Amino acid sequence: MMASTTFLGLGAMGCALAMAALDAERPVVVWNRTSHRAQRLGEHGAAVAATVEQAVTGDGVIVACLFDHRSVHDVLDPVAARLSGRTLVNLTTTTPNQARELATWAATHGIDYLDGAIMAVPAMIGGPGSALLYSGSATAFEQHRSLLDGWGESSYFGTDAGLASLYDLAILAGMYTMFAGFTHGAAMVGSEGVSATEFATRAAPFLAAMTGSFADTAAIIDARNYAGDGQQSLEFTQGALDTIVQASIDQGMNAEVLRPVHDLVRRQIAAGHGAQGFDRIFEELRITR
Amino acid sequence: MMASTTFLGLGAMGCALAMAALDAERPVVVWNRTSHRAQRLGEHGAAVAATVEQAVTGDGVIVACLFDHRSVHDVLDPVAARLSGRTLVNLTTTTPNQARELATWAATHGIDYLDGAIMAVPAMIGGPGSALLYSGSATAFEQHRSLLDGWGESSYFGTDAGLASLYDLAILAGMYTMFAGFTHGAAMVGSEGVSATEFATRAAPFLAAMTGSFADTAAIIDARNYAGDGQQSLEFTQGALDTIVQASIDQGMNAEVLRPVHDLVRRQIAAGHGAQGFDRIFEELRITR
Repeated sequence: MMASTTFLGLGAMGCALAMAALDAERPVVVWNRTSHRAQRLGEHGAAVAATVEQAVTGDGVIVACLFDHRSVHDVLDPVAARLSGRTLVNLTTTTPNQARELATWAATHGIDYLDGAIMAVPAMIGGPGSALLYSGSATAFEQHRSLLDGWGESSYFGTDAGLASLYDLAILAGMYTMFAGFTHGAAMVGSEGVSATEFATRAAPFLAAMTGSFADTAAIIDARNYAGDGQQSLEFTQGALDTIVQASIDQGMNAEVLRPVHDLVRRQIAAGHGAQGFDRIFEELRITR
Repeated sequence: MMASTTFLGLGAMGCALAMAALDAERPVVVWNRTSHRAQRLGEHGAAVAATVEQAVTGDGVIVACLFDHRSVHDVLDPVAARLSGRTLVNLTTTTPNQARELATWAATHGIDYLDGAIMAVPAMIGGPGSALLYSGSATAFEQHRSLLDGWGESSYFGTDAGLASLYDLAILAGMYTMFAGFTHGAAMVGSEGVSATEFATRAAPFLAAMTGSFADTAAIIDARNYAGDGQQSLEFTQGALDTIVQASIDQGMNAEVLRPVHDLVRRQIAAGHGAQGFDRIFEELRITR
């Protein structure tokens, strides 16, 4: 008989992960600090554990999807001795360093540790477009691929347990920044009565098309060659940003969304690089220590 | 015989515009403050004017693509009297208020004024993906559609001459912000030796797909209803941003790109809206006067 998979933490995401395993007809044990969501999964065939200790009886893989790094310790420290020889897949959102700390903690207790980051909202789990990033134990990743692949496309980034969350957070940094920029644009045209919906019909395809330039930007960054042909100069960019900020202020808006990119461009020009390409702002962002 | 179209300003963009008109076998007159680019267009059949006064002899449309708002006045004020009854298409990058000022100036001199903004780089002019936005004189837009359509897809936004540039700058605000966010992400993974090129292969399709959510964001903004189902809360977003910023700092990076969106979220939470959706940052950006 297949070993039961244990799910610790049944927020919206934890529920979606456990439900996907149930849909795949895996034996599932669930635990949550509060019980109403566990009951609902129980109706779908999950064994509902009353305590963490009860949930980790057996020898299957343990999937944690908890509130934060601290809650992983709060939940697992008391049962660490029972987890020796087992596999822990931690999908709790943490910083890379927190993932690394948990990997070290797991090694101390003889636990095979795989860290994961989920690039999907709960409703997407198990469906198209769901992607999960993993790093840490290569053995754990290979042994449990069929479980992991049931949640979405699985990618493995290496044995450094921090890499998956670093990658995930890097992409989320791009996402939140992009949405702030879109919202700024919507407020600009909104100041003259243009709806955000009307703005989105033009902004969405344009920005989607511009992601096609990320590869060019990346090649410039990787080569650290900001002086090549065809690059939009920092000086030109400064002029464009001056115009956008002035227009925003003229329209009575708060222009703070543009401040960092404007500041990065200005500092690179002040450092004498005005004729080089805009992508040189990378030099302002990378490791400063 | 078709009236000659006059091009004033032969930077990279002005050249591309004039070249597209020549390719369409229109008679073209060109002028630039310095003459080497004019000579090159002359080799392609343009009449090269030695002075602005000479360039605006005749009765065709005048296309200005100059350095900035001030340079439009510097070039055209001395010949304003000769432009009465003519059409001026101004593609110089200006703020909306500067476009409006030029429209008023043009009206004073009996000039039909169409303001335009170009959503393309010079190499794209006349090819697929090139889009130009116009506002101001509806008559000028309709009468010169065949000229305008030779540069790219033409859209008209209304008689307020400032609208085209407002729209253009709003989309550019989104674009520059998105590139700053991508660059931040590239620096995050770069701190662990992952190339920007590798990062782009994952970030580009994800961010392109996320532009598909702009319509949902826009509908929330237009309804000013940030309390509906399925919205990611400001509290949740703050947690995510805290994690991204901490991870960036842990990696030794400068995290300033994330500061505005983080600040906007924090201020909306401080104002008591933490349980409402992230899109509520719009309320921090829109008209403050």
